[in-house]
Order: sequence, then structure tokens, then C-alpha cells
Amino acid sequence: MTLEIKASIVGATGYLGGEMTRLLVDHPNVEIVDLTSNSNQGVPVWKFHPGLRGILDKEFVGLDIDGVASESDVVICAVPHGAALELVPKILEANEDVKVIDLSADYRIRDPAVYTQWYNKVHETGEWLGKAVYGLPEYYFDKIKKTRLVANPGCYPTSAILAMAPLFDKGAVKADSVIVDSKSGVSGAGRKLSEQTHYPECNDSIKAYAVASHRHTPEIEQEFTAHCDADVKISFTPHLTPMNRGILSTIYCSLKGDLTTDEAYGLYTKAYSDKPFVRVLERGTWPETRFVRGTNFCDIQVTVDERTNRAIVVSAIDNLIKGGAGQAVQNMNIMFSLDERTGLMATGVYI
Amino acid sequence: MTLEIKASIVGATGYLGGEMTRLLVDHPNVEIVDLTSNSNQGVPVWKFHPGLRGILDKEFVGLDIDGVASESDVVICAVPHGAALELVPKILEANEDVKVIDLSADYRIRDPAVYTQWYNKVHETGEWLGKAVYGLPEYYFDKIKKTRLVANPGCYPTSAILAMAPLFDKGAVKADSVIVDSKSGVSGAGRKLSEQTHYPECNDSIKAYAVASHRHTPEIEQEFTAHCDADVKISFTPHLTPMNRGILSTIYCSLKGDLTTDEAYGLYTKAYSDKPFVRVLERGTWPETRFVRGTNFCDIQVTVDERTNRAIVVSAIDNLIKGGAGQAVQNMNIMFSLDERTGLMATGVYI
Amino acid sequence: MTLEIKASIVGATGYLGGEMTRLLVDHPNVEIVDLTSNSNQGVPVWKFHPGLRGILDKEFVGLDIDGVASESDVVICAVPHGAALELVPKILEANEDVKVIDLSADYRIRDPAVYTQWYNKVHETGEWLGKAVYGLPEYYFDKIKKTRLVANPGCYPTSAILAMAPLFDKGAVKADSVIVDSKSGVSGAGRKLSEQTHYPECNDSIKAYAVASHRHTPEIEQEFTAHCDADVKISFTPHLTPMNRGILSTIYCSLKGDLTTDEAYGLYTKAYSDKPFVRVLERGTWPETRFVRGTNFCDIQVTVDERTNRAIVVSAIDNLIKGGAGQAVQNMNIMFSLDERTGLMATGVYI
Amino acid sequence: MTLEIKASIVGATGYLGGEMTRLLVDHPNVEIVDLTSNSNQGVPVWKFHPGLRGILDKEFVGLDIDGVASESDVVICAVPHGAALELVPKILEANEDVKVIDLSADYRIRDPAVYTQWYNKVHETGEWLGKAVYGLPEYYFDKIKKTRLVANPGCYPTSAILAMAPLFDKGAVKADSVIVDSKSGVSGAGRKLSEQTHYPECNDSIKAYAVASHRHTPEIEQEFTAHCDADVKISFTPHLTPMNRGILSTIYCSLKGDLTTDEAYGLYTKAYSDKPFVRVLERGTWPETRFVRGTNFCDIQVTVDERTNRAIVVSAIDNLIKGGAGQAVQNMNIMFSLDERTGLMATGVYI
Repeated sequence: MTLEIKASIVGATGYLGGEMTRLLVDHPNVEIVDLTSNSNQGVPVWKFHPGLRGILDKEFVGLDIDGVASESDVVICAVPHGAALELVPKILEANEDVKVIDLSADYRIRDPAVYTQWYNKVHETGEWLGKAVYGLPEYYFDKIKKTRLVANPGCYPTSAILAMAPLFDKGAVKADSVIVDSKSGVSGAGRKLSEQTHYPECNDSIKAYAVASHRHTPEIEQEFTAHCDADVKISFTPHLTPMNRGILSTIYCSLKGDLTTDEAYGLYTKAYSDKPFVRVLERGTWPETRFVRGTNFCDIQVTVDERTNRAIVVSAIDNLIKGGAGQAVQNMNIMFSLDERTGLMATGVYI
Repeated sequence: MTLEIKASIVGATGYLGGEMTRLLVDHPNVEIVDLTSNSNQGVPVWKFHPGLRGILDKEFVGLDIDGVASESDVVICAVPHGAALELVPKILEANEDVKVIDLSADYRIRDPAVYTQWYNKVHETGEWLGKAVYGLPEYYFDKIKKTRLVANPGCYPTSAILAMAPLFDKGAVKADSVIVDSKSGVSGAGRKLSEQTHYPECNDSIKAYAVASHRHTPEIEQEFTAHCDADVKISFTPHLTPMNRGILSTIYCSLKGDLTTDEAYGLYTKAYSDKPFVRVLERGTWPETRFVRGTNFCDIQVTVDERTNRAIVVSAIDNLIKGGAGQAVQNMNIMFSLDERTGLMATGVYI
Repeated sequence: MTLEIKASIVGATGYLGGEMTRLLVDHPNVEIVDLTSNSNQGVPVWKFHPGLRGILDKEFVGLDIDGVASESDVVICAVPHGAALELVPKILEANEDVKVIDLSADYRIRDPAVYTQWYNKVHETGEWLGKAVYGLPEYYFDKIKKTRLVANPGCYPTSAILAMAPLFDKGAVKADSVIVDSKSGVSGAGRKLSEQTHYPECNDSIKAYAVASHRHTPEIEQEFTAHCDADVKISFTPHLTPMNRGILSTIYCSLKGDLTTDEAYGLYTKAYSDKPFVRVLERGTWPETRFVRGTNFCDIQVTVDERTNRAIVVSAIDNLIKGGAGQAVQNMNIMFSLDERTGLMATGVYI
Repeated sequence: MTLEIKASIVGATGYLGGEMTRLLVDHPNVEIVDLTSNSNQGVPVWKFHPGLRGILDKEFVGLDIDGVASESDVVICAVPHGAALELVPKILEANEDVKVIDLSADYRIRDPAVYTQWYNKVHETGEWLGKAVYGLPEYYFDKIKKTRLVANPGCYPTSAILAMAPLFDKGAVKADSVIVDSKSGVSGAGRKLSEQTHYPECNDSIKAYAVASHRHTPEIEQEFTAHCDADVKISFTPHLTPMNRGILSTIYCSLKGDLTTDEAYGLYTKAYSDKPFVRVLERGTWPETRFVRGTNFCDIQVTVDERTNRAIVVSAIDNLIKGGAGQAVQNMNIMFSLDERTGLMATGVYI
């Protein structure tokens, strides 16, 4: 008998909500219950997500927390940062059997003071923040399996943590030396219209933004520190790149002692030998975002620059999939004891 | 018990060969036997098709016609025009049970004289040209079901024929009035390096090419004529568009009598009501190639311009899927009595 | 002694206003007086047009019609359609020596009834509509030289009229047979944010819009008819193409009698031998929008398809220059008896 | 009376040769003598550089060293690395009055051993290497004015040196801490066809290349060291970005002592107050490559990240102009005692 998971998405009109919907449609064990949008009740879902035209015959409904909580096995929250703060506990408390995967940043930062510092909001959620598990399956698999609340990682942090954890775990990295330089496709800026995402303003051009101030910084630092014996502070610079999807992160760190490229490479192949969604590329090949377009993979390559005794690591993900909706499906699979690859192995359109 | 089709691809290193491989990997009823490339024997397939890295663990093999014919239930030929002329009969004759789907143009043109005129080659294939079925499932389903040799349609013709057949079938079109103006993504020009597909020479720019001389012209005319009571001659202009995938065809024709937009629209919804891969868009919405990116759909919209008594039809396909590899899978499904949608319903990356 | 033209732009914050400003800055005979924007008074101009940072040290001012009219030799109106209706006469009447070049459509359509039909506005401008000259210098040079009011042509019409006038002038074109299929860069949609110009919604994708209903249709028809012995009605389809700048128009027409490609080509080289901004490309080369990027050129190629007895003409312009601001400068040069090339011969960035 | 410089370009068919030609055409004091290409003698220049069609009526000629040296006041060498090694002395020695600007790397590295290490060639050029001046006008103006041989800087080094010199000159930078992360448009890879610059392989995707091994590394280090009291070793990673033109460099360095963002910003505004082609952007605005597209500007912004005591500097240039041909013109202007801005102030197409 096939397991069927009843899943709902709260706030399903954005790009991440759309990608989430798309992946749930393709998932063999999921029945979609509710896709909510308070401002678009009654609108066919494919009007917002045209790839689903002729595939998904459903309309957005208004949010009824009790209803959605009681009819669903899992609720995916795709609402903006801040809005999930109160919403998540309400869902979890409305039905003690329901599980929640929150795509926002609201339950990712374990220290409420740090959250307040970067997000300008007070975190008054009692017990739930403590119960939330950071949903990076490659490192929190067992906790994810047991929790009712997964805080799905940010796109940039996913690309950075998977890229750096093996070096940190080896104790090879100087804690104060890490620089994360990330290049993101424009879908990462979301569906809301803005001057900087108006086509003629970003086509054929690249720029840095939120220099030394992006909110994913504390999230990356929290997880780097979890793999390190000292507090890690990083410099993180995101860039808006003229492409639809993808994040490429180029990461630099000074090494504590000697480490050859061979040894560094060995750390990665070992760390990820049993992780189905991390591909350590063959030596000599560096990640390209198109390699992972449309997939849940994270591609990684590493080298040690002996001239400077630095390791340079490059990772590539699809920001909407491994950096968002795909990772949420992977977490859902684990929470429901499915093979974590279920519904995620369709090949991508690399051309 | 599940049907398992043993499938091979001859000439699998190009973009169409890669897309074919990708779709066969995703197909639940296919076991891939041989992927051939005489010049790349022993090279891992993912070296050419990086989206398959970690998914398909196979190497290219040299072409052994007897071997591939005897071990396969179906052979897909993805060799260049001209090369399939002799290859296809050899495969079909090496094993009387094997079926062939030819992606080249060599068996699409039923009149050998027309073939010679446009392709500068003599067609000396005896009986096989006569047995070949033009593989457009929406119009040749029954013949495809029974044949051993499918000539898979060209990308531009697919977009044009699906767009125009309902109007022709109604007898509404003046035979000498049809103009097909098509815009293709650069993957349609193939994997071979050329100045015109060098990134800085085609990025952020559009151009027409092969004006009044493109080889898909007689193929489109043959099929238009099959739906018309008179010989159809068209003007066809393809354009190289700065995008990876997709063909948008804008087609103009003069109408014989009166026809309202409502009536024209009704012809389409009726013609395609039971065709799973043709979506007649809701009134007011015009096709965009991104709507079909990564899918086997053909999206269509029609209007009648009463000022000029012309119908204007716009269709969009993914040139590598409905315009090539996806249509081949659809044909394969029909030839093996599977639901024609099998393996083709994964959602596309419309963003 | 050098002529110095005092020029002002009313409504200078949009893309066309910015391109206009840029070209006036580069013009050796122009002193910029006022750049107006009622909602951005006091804002440095380079804040809206970053290419002018460090080059133009000026701020937007509010619109004072009497002031701008009295201090300027020429006022370029870059306000939206409809807004120019009343504004243009006010400027012309405020100073009887000032000249006006209007970039909107408001004074292009000579028949007020046609204007009302397509623009949903009544044209109550008394004498001024009759005095306006359609500012296509290749065909209205002498009238432009003498007028105080130039209606600067639309971008699509410029590409279409230059492409078709030689064939019409020869009497070779069947009046009811012309189809204009145009592909425009996204800057043509202007600076206003919209879903269809949000980067992820138009990148790597093409679509038709305003099918059989675009407002440039009557403008093209008016000018085609001016070159024809019968009323011309066309089918016109614009397409949104993933590039910043450029319009490529592919135009089809049936020929009345016999005409060879050689003869047709000869019509073009003759018609444009003394027109500095029209380049009839050498035989065998078809226009690409990048060839004219950043320039005031219109590139043209023609062929006769003997199979269908149609002529196919392709033209390429930079929509913001020959399709707008550059043509306005060309008109200004003529109105002030300068060489029409003045300030317009900087080479373009074809890569 | 106007100065007229007779200028020739050796190796004028590539992208840099084309941009060089274009800028010389636009230069008011230049008469172009010879544009050489041994393999394309007699071919019209616009066949390779279509933006010059109708503007420059000239053909490529074969290289006659004595002829080009004797007829020219300045020869710009746009031949590949390695080929300039012998060519440059031959030109200089053929006519003792001729000046040479070499666009290759062959005369940039002052230490021949370092050159050999990175370029795998021995530098046997006697005196000329010692006489070559590194052509970065912002820092070598006086030497450029007096030399006969300018080694025009590389594109990446230009973006990096202008970005970092003010901080180094202040003595604020830890010599072993500098990381240069650069993103280049595809024109930087040149005109030669390659798989990685085939449109479908790089469109809508980004990747790093030549990680820890790019040949511009020693050039950047040489110039950083010239501004520092210690030997500087850097990590440098270039990225291939889906756009035609532009380099954005994001540079990280640890600070020796305390430095506020205000103080750092002041270093830049002071250093570049009299440099016409460096624009220190207003606080809060970060460079975008489109701001400098088609221009000779280098845009810069800096911030101090107090959390990590690092400075982060971002610079943007047009790789073909300030990163190549425009800088060569600037050097030529200085060598011939013209205002360094001559012929370089045309506004760019920022949209």
C-alpha cells in the first residue's frame, strides 16, 4: 500500500510557493489539500504558475488555520519572514498530529537575540523555537526525522554550509578567515515587482547588493560555528546575476595547517559519499549553475591554493529547489520515513 | 507486470541525443541499452550531458548495427540529415522485430523528388520511405501505432502544423496565403560550434536566417497540403532568438469566408479536446515559450483579425521536447501501446 | 561661429527621455536648458540615468510651460500618449519661435477619427494637428525643415515604413497583402514596472502581445497608404523579445507582377543611396539588431520568394534611437539646418 | 591647428581589435593608417566589426613591420600573448619615432622569471622590457607621458588595482589577506569559438574558471605590491557571467588597524578627485556593470565591515574599454599630450 501524505501550502502564489506546488504535483506520495492565498481566493493556480496549466486543476483558497491544520499531514509555510512567527505555532497547536515545514527565516536562528538584531522583530514563540530543527538533511537527518517543525534553510546558507562543513569538521579552517561570495539568479529576489528586477535594469549586467548586511549572514555563521570549535564570523556578499535560477557560491578560507588539494578533496568525497543530493565533481571540473538547473543537487569542487594556504570551494544549487522547495520535499520525505529522494530525481534541463 | 522497453539511441552526443537520453532515463518503462557515439566510445555519458551526472552511469559505445538492432526493442536515430538514409533500413532489416524512430528529416518527406530538391541527396531506400509514418501523434496516431518506422517531425513543422490543422480541416484557409514566422532558441542550432552561436554574437540580439530557403519549408507544406484541398505553398522565416529553448510560431492566413474569433477558437478546443499535449489557452492569453519550457506541451491561441479577414495563430513548444525528443517518446509510447503521456508529465521549469 | 540650440525635454525620467538626454549631451550644437519631471524636482538626472553620472550635472525641474517655451529653441515632449494632446499647443503658443518635437503618438495620426478609434481620446487641437509633420526624415525632409511641430514616428512604424516604402513606391505591392511581424527588446515596454517585464517572467522566453490590436497599426497603415495607390490594411504582430534594445521587423507582401530579387534589391539601394542612416546590407547578409545597437541606423535586406511571389523584407533598428530619441535628434538637426548626421555618428557597441 | 595622430592596429580582427578600431574611428585626432590581419587581407573591416558598416571604408592589410612602423605615429598591438614578445621590439626598432601600445600581457610583468612561470615562455627582449611602462594612467601618468612603450593593463587587473590602491597607499591592508572575486562578461573570452562560450552552454548560468591559476594573478600582485610595503599574494577567482560586457570585482581585505567606512570612503574620493575616469559612487550605491557599459569609466564603492574588520571594495568596468581599448586610447592621449579624455567621453548605453 502506498503512503499518501496530505499536504498544504500556505502562501502559494510566490515563486517559492509555485516551485513547492510543482514539486508536490510531481511527488508520487502526495495529495495536495489546500493552496492558500487570501488575496487570490478562487483564482486557478495555473494563473500564477503557468507551467501547471492543464496539469493541476485547483484554485487558491483563503487561509483557515484550523481547517488546513486538521485536514493536512504536513503544512508548508511559504509566507514572508515575520509572518511565519505567529502562524507556525497556531498551525502546530491546532492539530497535534500535523507537521510544519517553514520556508521563512523565522525559525532558523536559534538565538532569539540574534534574530531580533538582524530581522528587527522580537521572537516570542515560547517553546517552538527550541523545538525547530534546521532542515539541512545532510547534517540534521535524525533530528528532522523526529521533529514536527522544520525550519527550511535559506538558499545562500544551503550553498555555503554544504560547501564548507567538511573542511570545518576536519578542524582545518581558521574561524575568522571565511569569505562567502555568492551569485544568485533573479528569481531569488522573488515575484514582487521592483526596479532592480525590471528586465532592462538587470539584463546583461551584474551587481553586488546588501554588502556586509545581508540577513543570511547570521544563519550561515550559526551553522559554520556548529561545525567549528570557535565562533565563526564571515564576510558575505550576494550578487544579482542575469539568469533566472541558480546560486554559485565561491568560498575562501585560510587553513590552520597544511592540507593538500588531494586531502581536501578526499574530505568531500568521504563526507558526501552517502548523500544522494551532493555531487562532488570529478577533479578539474568546477560547478556551473546550469548543471543543477531544475534539480535538487548541490555540486561542489574544492582546491587548495598553496601560494596562499587557502582553500577555495565552489558550490552550485538551484536556488528554488535545493535552495528552497526541493529541500522542503527532501525534509518532508524524511519526516514521513520515505526515501529522501522520492519525487526529486527528475532530470534537469541543463540546456 | 510492467512492460519494459529496451531502447537505444544512435548518435547520442548532441543536444537532441542528450534530451532523448534524459527523457528515457525518466521514463518508467524504458531500459536504456546502448547510447552510441563512434568518436566518443568509453566516455561517460554525463561528460556530454552534465545534467545526468550522478543519475546515469553509462558510457557511449561504438555503433554495431546488428548488435543494437538485436538487443533493442526500439532504436532512436539521432544522426544528422543524410546519415539516416542508409542507417535506418540497415537497422530495420537486421532485426525484423525492432522499431525505429528517426529524428532526422530523411524519412519525413514522402515525395523523393522534393527531398532531393531541398536536401541535395537522392533517396534510394526502396520500400522504407513508403512505410515510414510521419510521427505527429495528434494526427497520425493510428498509423504510428502500427508502423515499425516513425519519421519524427521537425521542430518548426510541429509548431506550425499543430497551429494550423484545425483551420485547414475546416476548409477555412486560402491555400496560397499562409505565412509562418518562427522564433527559435539557440539550442535549435545544435551543439556544433559556429560563429552565429558564439555567445557575444547572439546574446541580446535577434535575426532572421535561411529566409525563403529553410529546409523545413517542404515538410510544413506537405502536412498543410494533407489538411487542405489544394496544394499549399508557404513563406517560412525562422529567427534565432536569444534564449536556450523554445519555438514561438506566429502564423497568418487569409480566410476563405467569414469566420469569427469565437468560431475559430471553437475549432481548436474541439480539435484538441482529447489531445493531452495540446493546450488551447484561455481566451485573451497568448503563448509564451516559457510556459512550455521543459515540457511536451504545445500551447496555442488564435484570433480572427476582422479588419483584414485573416486568422492569426500563435503556438509555442519546447523545441527539444515536443519539437524533438519528447515527441519521439510520445511516438514510442504509442508504438508500444502505452498511454502516450507516460514519462512525459513532469512539470516544467516555467521560471 | 557655432550654432547653439537651446533644448529642453519635458518628461525626462523615462527610458526615451533618458536616451534623449544622453544624445543631447553628446550633441556638439546643443545646450540643454530644462529637463522636467514634476514628481522628481531637484533629483540629479544621473539618479535616473546612471550612464550620465559624472557627465551631466543637472537636476530635474518642474514643468513651467511659459518658462521652458521662452528659454528654449526646441522642446522635446517625452510625455505619455494623451498627455501631449494639450501640452504641445500650449508650448507652441507660449513662444512663437519655439519648435516642438513630440515623441508621443498624439500628432502622428492625421485623421482625428482614426486617432480616436485607436487611442480612445478626442483630438481637439484645432490647427496644430494639421500643421504637424510626420518626422521620418527619409521621406519628409523638406516638410520637417519648415515645420514648427514634428510628430516623431513610433518605433515599430519606423522599422516598417523604411522597410516597405521602396516596394510601395514602385507600385509593386498588393495593398491588402502586407504582414508586419516585429520583435522588440524589453526597453520598448518602458520604465514602468509590470509583471510582463519582471526579469524572471521574460528572460529566456518570447511572446506575442497586442495581437491584431496594437496602436501602431493605424500609424503604419497611414504611411504605407501614403506610398500606395490604394488604402493599405495590414496585420501587425509585435513580440516581446529577451533583449534590452532593438526591433527586428520581418515583413511579407504579395507582388502585383514579376519582380526579381535583383530588381527589388536595386529599388532599395537606389532609394537609400543618399540617406545616411539607412544601410541596405550587402546581398546575403540579413539584419541583426546588434548591428545597430547604440546607433541611429536602420539596416535592411530584401528577397523575392519566387515560389510564392512574395517579397520578404527584414529591417533592424535600435528602438530607443532610430525608433525614438535618435530620430528626434535627426529631425532637430534638419529643423535647424544642421547636417542631419550631427551628433549621431558615434559608433555602436555591436558586441 | 589640430594634432593628427597616425595610428595602426596590428591584429585587428578580434573583439579587442574591433573595439580599438571603433574608438579610433570616434577619436577626433586620429587618422587610421593600417589595420592588419595576415589571414584576412583585403576583407572589409566591417565584415568583422559590423558596427562599422557604412562608417569605416577600409580593408585589412597584411603585416609589413617596416611599413607600419614608418607610416604610423603609434602602433597598437592586439596580437595574442606570446606573439607580442618579438613583434614589439621589431616595431620600435624599425622607426625610432614610433610609439607602441601593447594590449598583450607580454610587457606587463616586470620580472621575467615571474613571466616565464605563468606564461611558459622565456622573455629575451633585452632592454625593452625595462623600458615598458605599465599603462594604468591613474598611477603611471608621468611615466606614460615619456615612454615609447606602454604595456596596456589586463582587464581584471585594471578593475582590481583601481579598487585597492587607495587602501594600500594608506597602509591599511594586511598584505596576505586580499581576495579578488571577479565576474566577467563573455566577450572577455575572446572571439575564438569554444564550447564554454557556445550560447546554450553559458546562457542563464554562471561558473568559476581558472581557479587559483589565472594568469592575471601575478600582474595584480605586482601592482598591489607596488602600493604596499610587503609582498602581496592574493587569491583571485574569475567567473564567466552571462552578459556580453563588463567586469565586476568584489575585493576583500583585512585591515591592519581601525578604519571607519567614512575614513575609507574619504581615501577614495581624495585619491580619485582629479581622475576623470574613476567614479567613486555616492554612499549607498554599489557599482553595476551596466553603469559603465560602453564607457571608459571605472565605478567604485567601499565599505568597512566592522564585524570582521575587513574592507570590501566593489569596482565595475567595461572589460573591452577601460579594461582594454579605452585605456589604450587614454594612454595614447597622454603619450601625445592630449587631454586624456579626448575621444572617450561618449555616453554609454546603460540600458
